[in-house]
Amino acid sequence: MRRPLKSKHFTTPFVACALLGTLGLLQNQYAVAAEAKAKAKPAMADLIKASSASDWRALDPENTLYMELEKGRVVMELAPNFAPNHAANIKALIREGYFNGLAIVRSQENYVVQWADPDDENPAKKREVKTARKNLDPEFTVRYDKKLPFTRLPDVDGYAPQVGYANGFPAGRDPKNGTAWLAHCYAAVGVARGNESNSGDGTSLYVITGQAPRQLDRNITVIGRVMQGMELLTTTPRGKGALGFYEKPEEMTPIKAIRIAADMPETERSKLEIIRTDTPTFKAIVEAQRNRGGDWYKVPAGHIDLCNVPIVVRPKQ
Amino acid sequence: MRRPLKSKHFTTPFVACALLGTLGLLQNQYAVAAEAKAKAKPAMADLIKASSASDWRALDPENTLYMELEKGRVVMELAPNFAPNHAANIKALIREGYFNGLAIVRSQENYVVQWADPDDENPAKKREVKTARKNLDPEFTVRYDKKLPFTRLPDVDGYAPQVGYANGFPAGRDPKNGTAWLAHCYAAVGVARGNESNSGDGTSLYVITGQAPRQLDRNITVIGRVMQGMELLTTTPRGKGALGFYEKPEEMTPIKAIRIAADMPETERSKLEIIRTDTPTFKAIVEAQRNRGGDWYKVPAGHIDLCNVPIVVRPKQ
Repeated sequence: MRRPLKSKHFTTPFVACALLGTLGLLQNQYAVAAEAKAKAKPAMADLIKASSASDWRALDPENTLYMELEKGRVVMELAPNFAPNHAANIKALIREGYFNGLAIVRSQENYVVQWADPDDENPAKKREVKTARKNLDPEFTVRYDKKLPFTRLPDVDGYAPQVGYANGFPAGRDPKNGTAWLAHCYAAVGVARGNESNSGDGTSLYVITGQAPRQLDRNITVIGRVMQGMELLTTTPRGKGALGFYEKPEEMTPIKAIRIAADMPETERSKLEIIRTDTPTFKAIVEAQRNRGGDWYKVPAGHIDLCNVPIVVRPKQ
Repeated sequence: MRRPLKSKHFTTPFVACALLGTLGLLQNQYAVAAEAKAKAKPAMADLIKASSASDWRALDPENTLYMELEKGRVVMELAPNFAPNHAANIKALIREGYFNGLAIVRSQENYVVQWADPDDENPAKKREVKTARKNLDPEFTVRYDKKLPFTRLPDVDGYAPQVGYANGFPAGRDPKNGTAWLAHCYAAVGVARGNESNSGDGTSLYVITGQAPRQLDRNITVIGRVMQGMELLTTTPRGKGALGFYEKPEEMTPIKAIRIAADMPETERSKLEIIRTDTPTFKAIVEAQRNRGGDWYKVPAGHIDLCNVPIVVRPKQ
């Protein structure tokens, strides 16, 4: 039943499909020769297939988090380059067991899922922070230098002077003041805060589940990205309260545990690898996405948004 | 329990929140005077509250569709200005009862939900099209003139020379060749097709559920937008097959019926109104979203993406 429909429908932007080549910048002109050339160009799936081991990196066990839910595991990777103090504090919280038994307390349509201690501000029931720091200065941006990897995307972006990828993480950069920051694309993981810049301590984290809310960039500390299991978060029932918060504890999704990959036996780890974003292969993937070829696309976009390039994660080969 | 968390967390980009003003273009400079001014500026919620009846329009009953699912109703509005033949054919299909008893056959993470006849290409079981047309020329773009409303967004866009809103629908425009088209933002409704441009007949429709796949613009016929009930689509379990198609009929979400508002008694209609996009109020809302003020935001974005402006729909006042 699936097969017949597949042929009826437009293709997907992601790995599984067989997108081919480009129509260049012809726009609305379908010269036969150009089409033939377009179809001959490699598609993303071909590029992935032809990639070598050096086009991939394993997730870093010391910075890979597993959030265990009833329905499965959400795998996140932290980017300590961008927020070293927050990364360290979140790991301290995890290692003292802070998140185990807490819950997803918020699911807002086309925006975020967030977890925290449901008894957060009830002094009698609130979970105690033991070893982690209780106050952290904001890490909304970092000063960058040559050590911070950055593969620049040449495409125009309205939210940042420069955009690109830092070791697999979508990021913005401002050469005028020498700062860089992780971007709020789908699957970004951030540190919830109140009105004060230093009020985010890592005890409540959020994940972007909708259209990239880039206006949050440089306003809150982004700490990493969900690498696997997004569908476990995006299919949570939406909270009926203001901002998508749940009104009753029984509506919340319990968190069995959050753990660090490095602390777990090899046999219990998710063995994943991510495409490197500083290689010719990645550059070719971006181009294959920017100007789709193949039989389905009639007009190439000639552009790709920072948050639309798939940063592919797959089982370690 | 919700209240305490609310104060801990960043605010939402949508109506319910109390976003205030703007920090102008100060970026990284927090002059006290400027902040005070920012906080005094109206936020989106204030603008909505202060709006008058003439800032809103009712959904057009003749072009409003109700898709009835077990869990509730998805309300869509067609934009016949952009695809008159497809709009007419979809209404013909609805009026002959084509969709009643069919199903959501695909749910792909961060991309689309799609419905169709699950027996689509099984000649023995396939549902017959009675009165509607079986072949339609593509309506990927339309020629525009002064009659086609268009409130231009001044912000840069990588996918189109000009972007804006046409009577509530996000759209692109190319003055060089005089064409306009609806954009693939979250909640856009489109007409699935195969590789041939004219292979979309309206019997299978899709809704964008993730980061705007704008590369589809001008490649497929967009016919409207979901106005209410997106969460009924975005929380459907993801299909395990290629491209998010379901592999078993029992995994699909049944469609009880799709009907046209005009064909239903007043008492059974969803009474909704949508913000007009050609008014000073809308312009002020866009600016309030482009440069957020208030207590939470520290750095204004100075930009807004076509697909990030909330086109507010609410119960008719």
